[in-house]
Amino acid sequence: MPTTLVKNGTIVTASDRYEADVYIDKGVITLIGKSITLGADTVVDATGLLVMPGGIDVHTHLDMPFGGTCSADDFESGTIAAAHGGTTTLIDFAIQDFGQGLFPAYDAWMARAQGKAVIDYAFHMIVRELSDQAAHDMDRMVRDEGITSFKLFMAYPGVFMVDDATIFKALRRTRENGGLICMHAENGGVIDTLVQEALRRGETAPKYHALTRPTRAEGEATGRAIALAEMAGVPIYIVHLSCADALEKVKRARDMGLPAYAETCPQYLFLSHDDYEREGFEGAKYVMSPPLRERHHQDALWTGILKNDLQVVSTDHCPFCMNEPPQKQLGRDDFSKIPNGAPGIETRLMLLWEGVRAGRVDAHRFVEIVATNPAKMFGLWPRKGTIAVGSDGDLVLWDPERELTISAKTHHMRVDYNPYEGRVLKGAPAKVLSRGELIVDEGTFVARRGRGEYVRRLAGPPLVP
Amino acid sequence: MPTTLVKNGTIVTASDRYEADVYIDKGVITLIGKSITLGADTVVDATGLLVMPGGIDVHTHLDMPFGGTCSADDFESGTIAAAHGGTTTLIDFAIQDFGQGLFPAYDAWMARAQGKAVIDYAFHMIVRELSDQAAHDMDRMVRDEGITSFKLFMAYPGVFMVDDATIFKALRRTRENGGLICMHAENGGVIDTLVQEALRRGETAPKYHALTRPTRAEGEATGRAIALAEMAGVPIYIVHLSCADALEKVKRARDMGLPAYAETCPQYLFLSHDDYEREGFEGAKYVMSPPLRERHHQDALWTGILKNDLQVVSTDHCPFCMNEPPQKQLGRDDFSKIPNGAPGIETRLMLLWEGVRAGRVDAHRFVEIVATNPAKMFGLWPRKGTIAVGSDGDLVLWDPERELTISAKTHHMRVDYNPYEGRVLKGAPAKVLSRGELIVDEGTFVARRGRGEYVRRLAGPPLVP
Amino acid sequence: MPTTLVKNGTIVTASDRYEADVYIDKGVITLIGKSITLGADTVVDATGLLVMPGGIDVHTHLDMPFGGTCSADDFESGTIAAAHGGTTTLIDFAIQDFGQGLFPAYDAWMARAQGKAVIDYAFHMIVRELSDQAAHDMDRMVRDEGITSFKLFMAYPGVFMVDDATIFKALRRTRENGGLICMHAENGGVIDTLVQEALRRGETAPKYHALTRPTRAEGEATGRAIALAEMAGVPIYIVHLSCADALEKVKRARDMGLPAYAETCPQYLFLSHDDYEREGFEGAKYVMSPPLRERHHQDALWTGILKNDLQVVSTDHCPFCMNEPPQKQLGRDDFSKIPNGAPGIETRLMLLWEGVRAGRVDAHRFVEIVATNPAKMFGLWPRKGTIAVGSDGDLVLWDPERELTISAKTHHMRVDYNPYEGRVLKGAPAKVLSRGELIVDEGTFVARRGRGEYVRRLAGPPLVP
Amino acid sequence: MPTTLVKNGTIVTASDRYEADVYIDKGVITLIGKSITLGADTVVDATGLLVMPGGIDVHTHLDMPFGGTCSADDFESGTIAAAHGGTTTLIDFAIQDFGQGLFPAYDAWMARAQGKAVIDYAFHMIVRELSDQAAHDMDRMVRDEGITSFKLFMAYPGVFMVDDATIFKALRRTRENGGLICMHAENGGVIDTLVQEALRRGETAPKYHALTRPTRAEGEATGRAIALAEMAGVPIYIVHLSCADALEKVKRARDMGLPAYAETCPQYLFLSHDDYEREGFEGAKYVMSPPLRERHHQDALWTGILKNDLQVVSTDHCPFCMNEPPQKQLGRDDFSKIPNGAPGIETRLMLLWEGVRAGRVDAHRFVEIVATNPAKMFGLWPRKGTIAVGSDGDLVLWDPERELTISAKTHHMRVDYNPYEGRVLKGAPAKVLSRGELIVDEGTFVARRGRGEYVRRLAGPPLVP
Repeated sequence: MPTTLVKNGTIVTASDRYEADVYIDKGVITLIGKSITLGADTVVDATGLLVMPGGIDVHTHLDMPFGGTCSADDFESGTIAAAHGGTTTLIDFAIQDFGQGLFPAYDAWMARAQGKAVIDYAFHMIVRELSDQAAHDMDRMVRDEGITSFKLFMAYPGVFMVDDATIFKALRRTRENGGLICMHAENGGVIDTLVQEALRRGETAPKYHALTRPTRAEGEATGRAIALAEMAGVPIYIVHLSCADALEKVKRARDMGLPAYAETCPQYLFLSHDDYEREGFEGAKYVMSPPLRERHHQDALWTGILKNDLQVVSTDHCPFCMNEPPQKQLGRDDFSKIPNGAPGIETRLMLLWEGVRAGRVDAHRFVEIVATNPAKMFGLWPRKGTIAVGSDGDLVLWDPERELTISAKTHHMRVDYNPYEGRVLKGAPAKVLSRGELIVDEGTFVARRGRGEYVRRLAGPPLVP
Repeated sequence: MPTTLVKNGTIVTASDRYEADVYIDKGVITLIGKSITLGADTVVDATGLLVMPGGIDVHTHLDMPFGGTCSADDFESGTIAAAHGGTTTLIDFAIQDFGQGLFPAYDAWMARAQGKAVIDYAFHMIVRELSDQAAHDMDRMVRDEGITSFKLFMAYPGVFMVDDATIFKALRRTRENGGLICMHAENGGVIDTLVQEALRRGETAPKYHALTRPTRAEGEATGRAIALAEMAGVPIYIVHLSCADALEKVKRARDMGLPAYAETCPQYLFLSHDDYEREGFEGAKYVMSPPLRERHHQDALWTGILKNDLQVVSTDHCPFCMNEPPQKQLGRDDFSKIPNGAPGIETRLMLLWEGVRAGRVDAHRFVEIVATNPAKMFGLWPRKGTIAVGSDGDLVLWDPERELTISAKTHHMRVDYNPYEGRVLKGAPAKVLSRGELIVDEGTFVARRGRGEYVRRLAGPPLVP
Repeated sequence: MPTTLVKNGTIVTASDRYEADVYIDKGVITLIGKSITLGADTVVDATGLLVMPGGIDVHTHLDMPFGGTCSADDFESGTIAAAHGGTTTLIDFAIQDFGQGLFPAYDAWMARAQGKAVIDYAFHMIVRELSDQAAHDMDRMVRDEGITSFKLFMAYPGVFMVDDATIFKALRRTRENGGLICMHAENGGVIDTLVQEALRRGETAPKYHALTRPTRAEGEATGRAIALAEMAGVPIYIVHLSCADALEKVKRARDMGLPAYAETCPQYLFLSHDDYEREGFEGAKYVMSPPLRERHHQDALWTGILKNDLQVVSTDHCPFCMNEPPQKQLGRDDFSKIPNGAPGIETRLMLLWEGVRAGRVDAHRFVEIVATNPAKMFGLWPRKGTIAVGSDGDLVLWDPERELTISAKTHHMRVDYNPYEGRVLKGAPAKVLSRGELIVDEGTFVARRGRGEYVRRLAGPPLVP
Repeated sequence: MPTTLVKNGTIVTASDRYEADVYIDKGVITLIGKSITLGADTVVDATGLLVMPGGIDVHTHLDMPFGGTCSADDFESGTIAAAHGGTTTLIDFAIQDFGQGLFPAYDAWMARAQGKAVIDYAFHMIVRELSDQAAHDMDRMVRDEGITSFKLFMAYPGVFMVDDATIFKALRRTRENGGLICMHAENGGVIDTLVQEALRRGETAPKYHALTRPTRAEGEATGRAIALAEMAGVPIYIVHLSCADALEKVKRARDMGLPAYAETCPQYLFLSHDDYEREGFEGAKYVMSPPLRERHHQDALWTGILKNDLQVVSTDHCPFCMNEPPQKQLGRDDFSKIPNGAPGIETRLMLLWEGVRAGRVDAHRFVEIVATNPAKMFGLWPRKGTIAVGSDGDLVLWDPERELTISAKTHHMRVDYNPYEGRVLKGAPAKVLSRGELIVDEGTFVARRGRGEYVRRLAGPPLVP
């Protein structure tokens, strides 16, 4: 088995920063120290680079079936793009079918990833109906398959939405089996009524997607989800929190000491409602749920990240093409038919680094929200998410001086637009290692397709305060 | 037409207190002044008494069908009891049947009251399903029948509970028709799950009724109801608010300037969870929803009353007998089968006067929460709820020195127990007038059965800040 | 003694609205009713008018000595202007001199008002140092002289500012003697430091007055004042609250049930920081403390008024001329030397009526904040502040259709500018009565100079919740 | 220079946990890895032990002059006791004398520590008056002497208390020089008044110390301190926060994103007001400021620690003997004369470990609050506060199975009582290393007196979010 030595870098973890070499043996870090002289199969020079744990993206939708088509990236293109951006592990969502337990979905998604993924991966399970079979399967998923988290929806009636009794029962179940509920928190009943009202008024343009999903609908659902979890006596994790209203509910709960957690995504930190006002059908590029919000929410979210009211930043990567193929065009005459989602798996770390540059967070907090907390939250730690003896050699060697311009022309995601098109960034991965293996080298993917491994996750309460 | 002169009393209204005589002509106050010398058919001496507007109870369930039986008081016994307690107007609830519009319920309840009620009355309408017919009938109720408020339930799945989309649609409807939504705010999905869990564990005693209805379930639903109303752009009125958790949501909304309103009831101010711990099946007397709460909530509610975060105190009078007939016994082996509700229509003012004696509120605020605000909230003002030229001569002549002991043996409600049995009070009605007619005189009902009149209420936003 | 009959008006009080005549005998209301036929010396026709209690302005500085000059209005010009605006009672501030007890100030202010005031008046006492003599005099003021409120300052070090120990001792004293502390709540230590810093930087223009008095300095002091009162176990009244930061502290205290009270002034509701940006030295017209705030605070204050977190609107009338004489010019080269204050005694009701027209408050709340609450707060009720049998016949007959344009050319205040110059209003007094005597008739003052009487106020806790 | 190898331990840092050996060369960690085979002068076996960064106590008062006597521990006895408890660095307070700059105090305290301290040490500077000299010296302390933090008092008028203008000026100064203000936040004006009132009533027993220092007085001052810092545009650090009222202010500030920080102490987590109710003069043992609080505050503080609203736990070690010598006896007849303070330098980590055992925090958070955050907060990191290549070899080898009973008979502090007398703990240091040198070995101090070194601290904003 091969050995790797990363020399002369500056190691940055969630709490430490120091200059040292890192020695990786059979994929696992075995030694960290000054001027390590052990021989290695591969020696990587990290002079001038920050050596950080590889990013962990806990919210992606690769190869996701949707209305006869699929999200534009599969596990090959998606994980290659992720690797280019410094992400070395992801957690995607398997989706229960109506009338079935959870195993068929598990099997299907395992098949989707296997032989394709180039970085390590795991799955959450989306539960659409909590039959006895499904409830029973939840236990087995946690115990036997390393799937320790389950996503429920408070929106999309008829498709994903479950009622409060179902949510509460699922929460109670995790109290027994050690799983964690992840929640899409928007009030679907309100939203659907507003959507119908809008369409009746002839409001069909993309921006009405946003105007029919008020921040209060997310705030309400977030507060409700937390209250249900509190009554059930379990933690809860809110996905893709987008606005101050929802954050306020999380803050309040945490101020009371409750184990309430939430992630936000780069799009809510860097894009805004203004993007829906772009001319023509351009706004469709930004149709996602929750929608982009007024600009002032961004400051609130950054404060939430700084003060640990938001613990994780994921991508909700769910790309649909504008034209080739014309996926977004499905909703040209009716915003409610536009496939929801946007690409982002590749740009997460580079965008968030802008927050470091702007002084909003330091490099430690950067590492924490992109890697350490995701790992501690979802049972991947200490194998993933840090640089420590015994952890996997998943490393991103960050060049804080590297400049780049985001563009669909150069990105590695298989989608024909980029929501940040033209944005100039400074700070990007120079090299990326997965289990000690160099997989991206100066912008080139240099490893084998399908080398990614499924990671069985550990059950139990989140290890994030 | 008869005239009445009330002499030598001290008039107390929501904002004023002064000594004066009141002259009532054809049921309506026409003159207020020092030493009025006009002749009158009836002269009532109010020396030493406080002359206050008659109480208005906006939450009663008289003659309410329930599981093959009915609530124990009909419109005759119930309104006589109310009159004894100083209440001269009530608003009861008509209940839509499944599969029907609202008119059959309206007709049925009008028939129940007519010829029986001894005080004036009006109706809210309980909406169980918002069919097109029901939605259309809402408009007609407001416009044509003076029924300007509609109650929805967030609890009792399968019986009354409606989902958020329905609530939101009903709220939007009131935006057009000028009605007001009243909400039973408890999360029925959570409660039903907890009830099932408890029964599975063999927990069948009355106290488990309370233990399966956590305050958080009321707090959550209250916050949600207000959020839905905010998004709909309309006021909302929370009925029978019982706990600090729910009050907190109302406070917060009102602090933001929202037209959120709530009532509480004397049982939440004077009784507590301790009553469920009484021996044997005694706890059944206190089975109501929301349940009685831990004692510390009482202080929070009194503060809410003082500071106008609670605007109204009603009774939720819904009596079921313990033994004759054995209505409460239906749940002897299963708390979830105990008919919910308790008597209180007669004792509201006397109990609340204890709050005046204890210095929690002054006599003006007393008048406001028992009469003026109920009238202003529900379209009865200025005809009802105050003492002013042009208003109905509905008066309670209050003797602050009168002492009495509450007992089922002496009360006028047709139910075989009283939740406050043995409680000694000071301050009670000496005389009660309805539209200038003396109907209760020193504890004796002296008027004609069926003299009460239906009051068509005015639509429009609540006149309470 | 004369009698007056006001006929055909629509009476509006804090809680009632009805059509009736009002009969006033020897200055006191004795009869209210439909079509009163008693003869009267004076009959005033109020057809089409709203008959409301005369306004009470609890914060004025007439004939106030300041740096060798005096505020521009004395008790004659000031009270005539007040009367024109519908105000029939005011409470001015007597100011303790250093090294003295409180009686010299009391005597001096009584002398200033007597023979000049045309409406009734009372005094608060400003305490600048709490010597044993002063503490002892506080008791006597309350007990013997009807001066039941005392103002302290947390700002203006060296002139008015007292330290926390002094404030706390004064608060404790009111616990014994039944008085009430009124607080100017701004952190003088911070402000003075910022003023010095600004002057050192050469920032001398009027706008720097505002920029050196941050809203946080008011918020902090407000919170501190309330905390001190809470620890002392007494109510407290914050004067001229100007911003959301301070209001937040009041709200929070009141949500907890504390007897914390506050007034705001029309200038904080209708003017803003923008006025400091006017060209030249114009900004000096708006130099007052606290300063005008950013526009968004106005909404917060209106919400506070609506929800009773603000109970009173007073004027802080303290006029200094721009040019004739050049009082404001004292600070032409140094904003810190501009006399603080602006005129407003005449325009309070008319400006606030704009809030009624805009739907921010209703006419009842209008009456409450300009008359009833001031009376109940400061021991003038029930003699003043309402229309009820036994109360003084202080009435403003309001013409909601009357239009006028505010201008220094036409106002009755003795000051050479008006901060609202050119503003067009709708709704104004048609006639004003003081103790039954018509004193302003269609814009003309028709009564005798010096007719105003000193009003001894009642001690005891505020009668406002 | 010697080398040390710590073998077979489980390393626990603020964010990591893993099994590895640690190699220390010339006092500094140079290598961390699996089965290190390098030779070393000293080999320490850590099998079964947790290897954690040595504790940092940022709040001690050793050899502090007080009323003719001194706090009972000097830098020798105090630091030996600290070492026994696993603390390897402390920050004590030098105290400015009236009429002087800061250098005399600096020199005096350097002299007190030198040749005595057995662990590394640094100083904060207490500023009692902000003369021009003192302000100028603040800059020099930060720039030249590594004293980067300054403590001010809002209590103890006449002794330490400074007014708001002084506080604000000092805060502004740190904006320029990169220092940090530490605040004793209690309202001294209120407290002194209450103390005088109590003594006048003859209330002289120790418990009145607590009863005259209400939690609101701490809450108010905490809120004020934060507001002053916000207006000054700088961070602030609240020392020895003791109650929920004060924590609430910190939370609220942090929720808004402000750089507000606070420490609490073990006494506020493990002792309570009940201790003042002990018989006789026993309560004097617990006389400290702020005083111990009602028990329910403990939960709030633990939640604050968990959620990072409290970042540090220090001791405020300030011991005075009960009898030998009779220091506490000074206040036998007057609680206000009891020297304030209690011992705790030795027991901090062991007590806090109880929080780990009880599941209130995990071992990572334990490390963070006792070592990493103190270091990052006060310019000691990365030299101190973590286990990383390049950091000092300050280690505590923790035996989670070690049981002990706290007692004055066995503790190493030079004081004749222990506030936790008789408390049984589980989890204690087995060995302690300072810069690679074993200084405590199984309960025996094995190093040289005076080996401790002064640590110059780094200026700049706190590195804790």
